[in-house]
Amino acid sequence: MTRHELVEHIRKKKTYLCVGLDSDIEKLPRHLLRLDDAQFEFNKQIIDATLDHCVGYKINTAFYESQGVKGWQSLEKTISYIPSSHFTIADAKRGDIGNTSAQYAKAFFETMNFDAITVAPYMGEDSISPFLDYEGKWTIVLGLTSNPGSADFEMIVSENTYLFEKVLKKTSGWGNPDKLMFVIGATKHEMVRNIRMAYPDHFFLVPGVGAQGGSLSEISASGMNSDCGLLVNASRAVIFSSQGENFASAARLSARKYHEEMKVFLDRYAKVK
Amino acid sequence: MTRHELVEHIRKKKTYLCVGLDSDIEKLPRHLLRLDDAQFEFNKQIIDATLDHCVGYKINTAFYESQGVKGWQSLEKTISYIPSSHFTIADAKRGDIGNTSAQYAKAFFETMNFDAITVAPYMGEDSISPFLDYEGKWTIVLGLTSNPGSADFEMIVSENTYLFEKVLKKTSGWGNPDKLMFVIGATKHEMVRNIRMAYPDHFFLVPGVGAQGGSLSEISASGMNSDCGLLVNASRAVIFSSQGENFASAARLSARKYHEEMKVFLDRYAKVK
Repeated sequence: MTRHELVEHIRKKKTYLCVGLDSDIEKLPRHLLRLDDAQFEFNKQIIDATLDHCVGYKINTAFYESQGVKGWQSLEKTISYIPSSHFTIADAKRGDIGNTSAQYAKAFFETMNFDAITVAPYMGEDSISPFLDYEGKWTIVLGLTSNPGSADFEMIVSENTYLFEKVLKKTSGWGNPDKLMFVIGATKHEMVRNIRMAYPDHFFLVPGVGAQGGSLSEISASGMNSDCGLLVNASRAVIFSSQGENFASAARLSARKYHEEMKVFLDRYAKVK
Repeated sequence: MTRHELVEHIRKKKTYLCVGLDSDIEKLPRHLLRLDDAQFEFNKQIIDATLDHCVGYKINTAFYESQGVKGWQSLEKTISYIPSSHFTIADAKRGDIGNTSAQYAKAFFETMNFDAITVAPYMGEDSISPFLDYEGKWTIVLGLTSNPGSADFEMIVSENTYLFEKVLKKTSGWGNPDKLMFVIGATKHEMVRNIRMAYPDHFFLVPGVGAQGGSLSEISASGMNSDCGLLVNASRAVIFSSQGENFASAARLSARKYHEEMKVFLDRYAKVK
């Protein structure tokens, strides 16, 4: 998906919600567990229910890998089911030496047709460039994450600069804002204004709203640009709104609530017409 | 596998070779491609041929994920095929927020019965501790990698210390040398002596010998401790010694050559009887 297509989708629908399919088999509604592929059936109903209120889906690969081959099948069925109107992210946090990263890129961009993948920066340029080599695909580099452990290394200071700032600076030289995004956690909204000033054009994928405690209002005020520039992900707060038989309609309600708030923030903070 | 079992295996057999199953489908001998599961059939024959000369196998997940569900099946069949005498490493370089890392740990330690997994440190403690929570399993943290990109972030200096040294120091506080190893690339042998002095007890998983240019002699001289303390991985240099019908016997010859050299280095540098 091109940047133009993504921004037009946000503009038209007035939402920048990404629904995270962290579809933990142990948290699925019990009545689904009878089915042959409960994980896919759950995702299918969640996608049908939330499609109108989001612009993308983020699939967290860990929750499928933990189920082995069966989980990988559910993953492939899920990515095939999502309509091409919606931006799809493999939240896989891959990264390895060049020839290995090229295999991961093939896995998520060719074998499965994801629009984007999250990648870990630790191993440097040759671990990231094989993803950036794909036209029409997006590489989403971990910058400042939303978890407590982000303080351990991402916040190490040298030459008055945090490590995550060095990551943003260096990786932004490897790909342009039409194919490179950054993960910027919602729990760090006080730092987001500075990051936005330094990187006015990049999209930020923002996890951590909802279950992890980040505020949609604050991140939107600090992080938006004139193209919106944010994809805010909510996973558990949407998909596990209810674990009863009404799970899909409850997820729809939760996604709609985000959508309503996002309409307000888009009018307030972005020049999105 | 316990540390004692691993060290005894090294002692008894006088090898610290780990064979890397980077079984790129495009490089497999052509006569195997007719088979239903060429990737597994290749691995099976490589394992049979090299078992006597190595103490472990490292399976690079990227080369299986790129083949989708079929690749994941080959991966599961391969890990099941390796005898329990041999140490098995999922070279997966995973790492995510706590609840997600717990799913990856489940995938590789429970759903598949790997002894160890490689993990990326960027996201900090809660991204690594779910792996360390498993008894009898090993977490192998990326320290100083063997690729050119290792210079980009791993070598950033603050307070006279490289980032990778900070990673080693901090993560060594999260798990003891009976369940925590580090990835230390063979292409950086000039730095290995200092790393070994700072971490006398930890095992190092050493990639980069062979195709990437690292020297077995130099890394052995610099990195060994009295328990050996090294698992030296060779992938392409062993498994793709020949791409003809004699691929397995060629791999055996290559592994045997490493084994012969390792016997000498164990006698010379370690107090392994």
